[in-house]
Amino acid sequence: MKNNEKKDAAKKRDENIAKKEGLGRRTLLRGALLSAGAAAASVGIARGDDSIGANAPEWMKTPGRSFSGYGVPSKWQEKVQRVYTVAPGRAGTGVSRTPLQLLDGTITPAGLHFERHHNGIPDIDPARHELLIHGMVKKPLAFSVDVLKRYPMETHIRFIECSGNSGGYNQAQPPQATTAELNGLLSGSEWTGVRLKTLLDEAGLTSEAKWVIAEGADAAAMSRSVPLEKCLDDAMIAMYQNGEAIRPEQGYPMRLLLPGFEGNMNVKWIRRLNVIDAPMDARDETSHYTELMPGGKARQYMFPMGAKSLILKPSFGMNLDGPGWYEISGLGWSGAGRIAKVEVSKDGGRNWELAALSEPVLPKALTRFRLPWNWDGQPCTLLSRATDETGDVQPKRADWVSQFMPGQIYHFNGIQAWGIAADGTVKNVYV
Amino acid sequence: MKNNEKKDAAKKRDENIAKKEGLGRRTLLRGALLSAGAAAASVGIARGDDSIGANAPEWMKTPGRSFSGYGVPSKWQEKVQRVYTVAPGRAGTGVSRTPLQLLDGTITPAGLHFERHHNGIPDIDPARHELLIHGMVKKPLAFSVDVLKRYPMETHIRFIECSGNSGGYNQAQPPQATTAELNGLLSGSEWTGVRLKTLLDEAGLTSEAKWVIAEGADAAAMSRSVPLEKCLDDAMIAMYQNGEAIRPEQGYPMRLLLPGFEGNMNVKWIRRLNVIDAPMDARDETSHYTELMPGGKARQYMFPMGAKSLILKPSFGMNLDGPGWYEISGLGWSGAGRIAKVEVSKDGGRNWELAALSEPVLPKALTRFRLPWNWDGQPCTLLSRATDETGDVQPKRADWVSQFMPGQIYHFNGIQAWGIAADGTVKNVYV
Repeated sequence: MKNNEKKDAAKKRDENIAKKEGLGRRTLLRGALLSAGAAAASVGIARGDDSIGANAPEWMKTPGRSFSGYGVPSKWQEKVQRVYTVAPGRAGTGVSRTPLQLLDGTITPAGLHFERHHNGIPDIDPARHELLIHGMVKKPLAFSVDVLKRYPMETHIRFIECSGNSGGYNQAQPPQATTAELNGLLSGSEWTGVRLKTLLDEAGLTSEAKWVIAEGADAAAMSRSVPLEKCLDDAMIAMYQNGEAIRPEQGYPMRLLLPGFEGNMNVKWIRRLNVIDAPMDARDETSHYTELMPGGKARQYMFPMGAKSLILKPSFGMNLDGPGWYEISGLGWSGAGRIAKVEVSKDGGRNWELAALSEPVLPKALTRFRLPWNWDGQPCTLLSRATDETGDVQPKRADWVSQFMPGQIYHFNGIQAWGIAADGTVKNVYV
Repeated sequence: MKNNEKKDAAKKRDENIAKKEGLGRRTLLRGALLSAGAAAASVGIARGDDSIGANAPEWMKTPGRSFSGYGVPSKWQEKVQRVYTVAPGRAGTGVSRTPLQLLDGTITPAGLHFERHHNGIPDIDPARHELLIHGMVKKPLAFSVDVLKRYPMETHIRFIECSGNSGGYNQAQPPQATTAELNGLLSGSEWTGVRLKTLLDEAGLTSEAKWVIAEGADAAAMSRSVPLEKCLDDAMIAMYQNGEAIRPEQGYPMRLLLPGFEGNMNVKWIRRLNVIDAPMDARDETSHYTELMPGGKARQYMFPMGAKSLILKPSFGMNLDGPGWYEISGLGWSGAGRIAKVEVSKDGGRNWELAALSEPVLPKALTRFRLPWNWDGQPCTLLSRATDETGDVQPKRADWVSQFMPGQIYHFNGIQAWGIAADGTVKNVYV
């Protein structure tokens, strides 16, 4: 044999051994000893030091490109995009969804944060934008961007989820679509801004004050009624997202942030807060964002998003490459506070195991869960189930659906299941 | 008076009252009752409900723009860019700096993460990239990107700081430059990847193993010696940054992350780890990244970055708009662990106050500190001083400088001071 052939043969042999034996490892995660491993190819002496220089890839042989003022992702990542659909004839009305299954960690890059617009993204000159607080207050106040930046700020990592996220699960047959398409109206960011209570205290509430009507400076003048209690709790006028000025799609130069409440209430491009004594029954509080109950009545003003979780890896469209070790990974979140635990079932719900939660576990924030998995190549069904610190447990899909009129799509937080076929195909299934 | 004139007169009167009285407020931060406020203009009845529709800005009168696959910052933020300098004739050699003073929170947007390249940014095809572990191991192993993604991952928020950051403070006169220019070789990200210990355990270390030579796949083949102890502690092969695939400028498709160690050791585009028994005295361990001591000897292999803090708001170039309430805000960090406290002095170091730290305070991560400040319009000097959980205290600048030979620039962590003039101008001063 020539030298190269010898190397190839040695490499092939090592790969076969590696395949047969698997590659065991033990990893300590949150105090639980979990058996884990993966399909690393053993390369042995065939990749000794001598061959590294000669085999260097072409990108090591010429100088690379230069610096830039504001960087963008690698060209090899060009498929990692928001998935969007717009209403016919109305380019600014619709949604774009975060490609959750292609990401990892807990922060959503600002460029991939989901969008929900009712009449497009306004191009606001920050020097001319003001936030007005008026109505049942002792002293109406206006805040320019520059003035607001002189106030004490706070920084918090929080999720935003559209009320209609995962609404496709109300269908009789499981929708065969990616988690981006099914669940991508969900993103997590580090938000920085001024606590709304600080501003309301300065304006001075009168004794009749009970609700605040928040209005955006978009062409829909998006308006929602917010209970005063929430405005005096953890509500924020956010001006920074993931460290930089909030993006146009998320409300530049400022948005209302109501941690844990349905996305639509976190009014973007916020321009005024009208303090009044009753909710306004705005268009998006009657025609949308209500819960249709059996009998035909609609339940209004259901604000917090429930405890929920979702396996992202693997998920629809991300088929397995044969038996062996994988990591099951996904996100858990709750509008009521911290995630207490996420359990994973690998057998359709008969047995459940605790997944490791990525620290720090923060309230009303996306929490990454992980569990190593040695797939034996047999068909199986993967599920995840979140419980939050208030004891709220993610319900079975059928139990969630049975509460409502057929067709109701808001506030879905049922358990989702992925069916793994013997060939590694991953499908959405109902259990 | 016509109606408009009446409104204008009322507005003018309210603005004058607001200016004279100031606008007091009390804000509870971390249990300490702090007096705070800001220059909000009282607008009174002149901005009643009736005028809001007619006065709506033009961006509320036409539909806004549509959706996008990957969003970018507002056009109004175009000055928020990395500041970069390249070596003459070598476009890929130099640094770009994060514009820290224009950001807020603790996460650095990936597009603004600082850069330090020694021969440009390689354009790596992830399908052809491998990480090789060889040398003093029982079983040399190669990991493709796809294989590595099957391993158990971890997510951590950590800072990276270049060893030469703030080196300009070794000058005899205080450099008059922005914090981006002086201190911008510092960024914080959420990193996700595989713990290096997992991979080294799988390869199996031999008893002689003491150091690991990390080599990047750039045209400089950037190489650094890493103590094995660090590789078996919190070192990570990072593949995701702030939720998405790591950016080309930070090592796409993978980098070595050594939390708390000087930036240069966090080898980007990592392609191999050669396990050996001694450090290699590589170019960047002799010609750079050493500490020049009095007498002319160089101290090598000083890895962790010290406890440090920095006031960003206000700072050079961000002049104050007259007396009144502002927020003093900045960042603290330490390569040894968590920040225990940041103290702020408003009088050149005579008196110190505890700043509020933004929760959660994470180890080896940027920590935002904040303190409300009612500036009386008199000249004064602002300082910040960090202490980490190991008790390490940020030294005075003069004490730091006196340890070394003149001209030594690495590992500066001295206290920085901003002098405020009566006209609101902010300058860099030595105290």
